[in-house]
Amino acid sequence: MKNKFNNSQPNFIEYLNIFTNKFEKFYNQKYFIDSAPNILKESIQYINSTGGKRIRPFLVCECAKLFDIKFEISIYAAIAIEMVHTYSLIHDDLPAMDDDDMRRGKKTLHKKYNEAIAILSGDALLTDSFVILSDNYRNIDLNICLKLISLLSKSAGSGGMVGGQILDLFPENNNKKSVNLMNEMKTGALIRCATSFGAILGNASKKDCKNMYEYGNSIGKVFQIKDDLLDLQGDEKMVGKRINKDKDNGKFSFIDLYGEGKTKKIALTYISQAKDILASYGTKSNYLILLTDYILDRNK
Amino acid sequence: MKNKFNNSQPNFIEYLNIFTNKFEKFYNQKYFIDSAPNILKESIQYINSTGGKRIRPFLVCECAKLFDIKFEISIYAAIAIEMVHTYSLIHDDLPAMDDDDMRRGKKTLHKKYNEAIAILSGDALLTDSFVILSDNYRNIDLNICLKLISLLSKSAGSGGMVGGQILDLFPENNNKKSVNLMNEMKTGALIRCATSFGAILGNASKKDCKNMYEYGNSIGKVFQIKDDLLDLQGDEKMVGKRINKDKDNGKFSFIDLYGEGKTKKIALTYISQAKDILASYGTKSNYLILLTDYILDRNK
Repeated sequence: MKNKFNNSQPNFIEYLNIFTNKFEKFYNQKYFIDSAPNILKESIQYINSTGGKRIRPFLVCECAKLFDIKFEISIYAAIAIEMVHTYSLIHDDLPAMDDDDMRRGKKTLHKKYNEAIAILSGDALLTDSFVILSDNYRNIDLNICLKLISLLSKSAGSGGMVGGQILDLFPENNNKKSVNLMNEMKTGALIRCATSFGAILGNASKKDCKNMYEYGNSIGKVFQIKDDLLDLQGDEKMVGKRINKDKDNGKFSFIDLYGEGKTKKIALTYISQAKDILASYGTKSNYLILLTDYILDRNK
Repeated sequence: MKNKFNNSQPNFIEYLNIFTNKFEKFYNQKYFIDSAPNILKESIQYINSTGGKRIRPFLVCECAKLFDIKFEISIYAAIAIEMVHTYSLIHDDLPAMDDDDMRRGKKTLHKKYNEAIAILSGDALLTDSFVILSDNYRNIDLNICLKLISLLSKSAGSGGMVGGQILDLFPENNNKKSVNLMNEMKTGALIRCATSFGAILGNASKKDCKNMYEYGNSIGKVFQIKDDLLDLQGDEKMVGKRINKDKDNGKFSFIDLYGEGKTKKIALTYISQAKDILASYGTKSNYLILLTDYILDRNK
């Protein structure tokens, strides 16, 4: 990836790694309900230790920066959204769902422990994400705090991510419109939530809120397209989980509907839209612009 | 059950039935995210149609009444808490957890549909409960709205109900203290949340908030003791689910630790404590007092 900056500034991968390390330090310190049973603390520590790209927290903190909100403030919203993302992966991997033994190159939670612990750890992460938001933002601004909670619950709920997971497992149709809707709900909703969190935290104008929503929408599409491409062509060891499973399961992806060439072109159009939005924020958005390329270039 | 009132007033069971019918009408009207997939709407409609005692919503609305809050206001908090309770039953019944085929005399959700739909419907109910709270109370009072969300998430999360479920399945100890703690988290937390919701909705004094918490704590204990007694002695057809399973699973209950006679005495002490608290609210608390007896007298 091209480095747009002079040598004193980290390139994108270095910058993302710095963020990820900082995030994980906070994640493991700040998210723990003291009264949780030990086995739950252990299972959640295990799942946190398996890593992850931390794209959603990165989006929250970088988008918040556009509106001059510091990491020390945005981190809790970043943690909450990563908890929701993590719970969704834990439940998705269960035998009754995608039935995956490996994730990020390590055992999935139900393989490491058992199914009951995986189901309940997921439930705990989802519920506690609202504890994190209400505990950490109510003393800053009640209205901002409620906007975050409202958006997260809507993005994760039956009109968002969970609804999308249902449509993925039990499609109502297999046409372009329904595959698109499924993706917008399953993957897109939480990414739009992450970028919009930046605007909410910054008490941004309507125009900026719309920009962040649209930026999230564009990169959400790219993200899903890249996941489909990785599922088709990726290296299983590199991706860290079983690939080609969508094909095995008879699920329709963008690629089935548009072909590989057209799908890549669609991704490039969305990347271009995302960059157009970011351009209006000047140098503050440099790393978000690099992220936009990274989402399509990544190999896992 | 003795009727304390003159003939023009309904007795407790009639009163509870009137409430339940009214609640269910609202529940099915007010809780539905328009953009949810049809299969999710159907599965949640099925689970709602299987009924339930609706004790938690009753507690929310009756406790709110003590502080002059109308049903039309308290209903949304009642709906949210019943959604969380329902999700917990759906996940509890899964093969990886309690593995129950029947609940309330009808097929459990994973038996009616499948495990994936049961897991995701539970996830949806839990997440959407926060949508219901934020959508319906933010325009009334931001502070009340956030207090409800904060308490519900803490009561349902890893320091509350989910933590209790973990301790129930994987006990750290089998002594009185740990069985007590497990019950306080698994069953007690959501009942204390329901009674406290009344005080929060009524913007009540610290003393009243403490009263509602303590009242919830007392009847929560009675509730759990009665569940243990029903599991030991109940009529399977009447209870509507498999009984004696705790014994089969080698789990310790109050009865194992204290014996049946002492356990019943403990329940009566808690009932007496609950009634002492309610006495200070005069005739407004008449039906809550009757509920307190009902919790021990019920046969399902």
